[in-house]
Amino acid sequence: MTYCLGIVTKHGLVMASDSRTNAGYDQINLTRKMHTFVHPGERVFVILTSGSLSLSQSILTLLRRDFDAGRGLATAPSLYDAARVIGDQIRRVSDLDREALERDKYNFNCNFLLGGQIKGEAPNLVLIYPQGNPLQATQDSPYLQIGETKYGRPILDRGIKYDRTTLEEAAKYALLSMDSTMKSNVTVGPPVDLMAYSDGEFDVTRHRRFTEDDPDLTKIRVRWEQALRQAILRLPNVSLSHRPNAGPQPQPETIQLVDTTPAEPVADATVPSSVAPPAAVRGG
Amino acid sequence: MTYCLGIVTKHGLVMASDSRTNAGYDQINLTRKMHTFVHPGERVFVILTSGSLSLSQSILTLLRRDFDAGRGLATAPSLYDAARVIGDQIRRVSDLDREALERDKYNFNCNFLLGGQIKGEAPNLVLIYPQGNPLQATQDSPYLQIGETKYGRPILDRGIKYDRTTLEEAAKYALLSMDSTMKSNVTVGPPVDLMAYSDGEFDVTRHRRFTEDDPDLTKIRVRWEQALRQAILRLPNVSLSHRPNAGPQPQPETIQLVDTTPAEPVADATVPSSVAPPAAVRGG
Repeated sequence: MTYCLGIVTKHGLVMASDSRTNAGYDQINLTRKMHTFVHPGERVFVILTSGSLSLSQSILTLLRRDFDAGRGLATAPSLYDAARVIGDQIRRVSDLDREALERDKYNFNCNFLLGGQIKGEAPNLVLIYPQGNPLQATQDSPYLQIGETKYGRPILDRGIKYDRTTLEEAAKYALLSMDSTMKSNVTVGPPVDLMAYSDGEFDVTRHRRFTEDDPDLTKIRVRWEQALRQAILRLPNVSLSHRPNAGPQPQPETIQLVDTTPAEPVADATVPSSVAPPAAVRGG
Repeated sequence: MTYCLGIVTKHGLVMASDSRTNAGYDQINLTRKMHTFVHPGERVFVILTSGSLSLSQSILTLLRRDFDAGRGLATAPSLYDAARVIGDQIRRVSDLDREALERDKYNFNCNFLLGGQIKGEAPNLVLIYPQGNPLQATQDSPYLQIGETKYGRPILDRGIKYDRTTLEEAAKYALLSMDSTMKSNVTVGPPVDLMAYSDGEFDVTRHRRFTEDDPDLTKIRVRWEQALRQAILRLPNVSLSHRPNAGPQPQPETIQLVDTTPAEPVADATVPSSVAPPAAVRGG
């Protein structure tokens, strides 16, 4: 399994990928899923992959061969066109391999996340599907994910804002999203590659690979879990005071939210509901 | 879609369910998914359902008919046996409906979460699969989920401990897990039913139904998002200071974690990595 994500803000890009691969007929357990194509000062692409490693390797090999020869990603005039270059190579490998795979009940499955910038454009982020068609991130939806996407999504939904999130914050969101996914799904695993890119940089200068026992990753995880527990404690409380069992009607409103932080006026929330009398829910 | 969860701790149970249903051939958009069977002072069962509403309604009708006649759940000697009673009714409805459903390419799909207590036992929580077999929660895995489970799982993984989590905290975890799921998947939706049960209570006295615009649910959500953003800001920072592009080798260690909370000794984390010189990652 795989989890990769990209975040785009007005300041630039943050991208992260795990390194576990063990699905289907792959024979490799760890692989780097973050790949860079750079013409310093002019264009930078960071590509993350999920799906069959055999397929994504083929596609990357063809992309690299063209790039080194001054074609394909080396000359795409925009990030949209670069996404189309990737889509074309996906379709080329589909022509090569799909029929043989499907004959043996394997899906043709590979997704690509492309982040980067070409001089004259803002940084952007595109997902390219196994069919080769691209989907761009937007200011309203400034992150994209591939692979095991669900566990790591709530933290992004809660916090990422295109206009307001700094790259430093985005890097922390990306690490926490990755960490949540690794905690909930053992088939997503370290090392974690994390890169940050600032608008106008046109090079990849800031990357880090976090191994399983990286002390900084451990510190972030421990601090995060402490912070979450403290946040839970500080939230308005659900009062569990007992109520008499006083009637046959279902759905008594006998839980009130009692605010434990004195700063805000919350008296209303502590007043018992007008649904009275509180009643037990009984079968029969 | 559906999201339901149960949490069991040494103090008791917390259970929560959403109310949206719109999959397959269901004609009903909102339905209560939390059902109670109580003999006060002696036994209490709370059942949450996911999957086909037609199927779960049939199973609950049969369970209720038996319960009211003093059979089935009314006489099960243990929670394990109660789960088997539910499994038997699932299999009975499977015998009635599965063939006709599968002929038209519908799956026989319904999952049940049973929480409760029978006098003489501790409270416990059991998941019953569409095949009728039960899975019990354990002290190491003190929560169970059915339906759209992934979005709401990381917050539970981070915080729920059988021995340490109070019912008040568990109720907040359950609400946040539900809220995260509703935020990430629009097919899970309010009203949210939330109930809490203390060991030895043998009745359902504490339940609340949160509608979409419930001011207390809104307050919890707003406070939670504020707390998460503050927690992100307080985490050790990922320094994004620029580094010179000084070489062709990939994977420079040019991101350091800079701790922004002065209390702990973190000098090590701010020292640049020994991987030197920092180098740009270049294609070609």
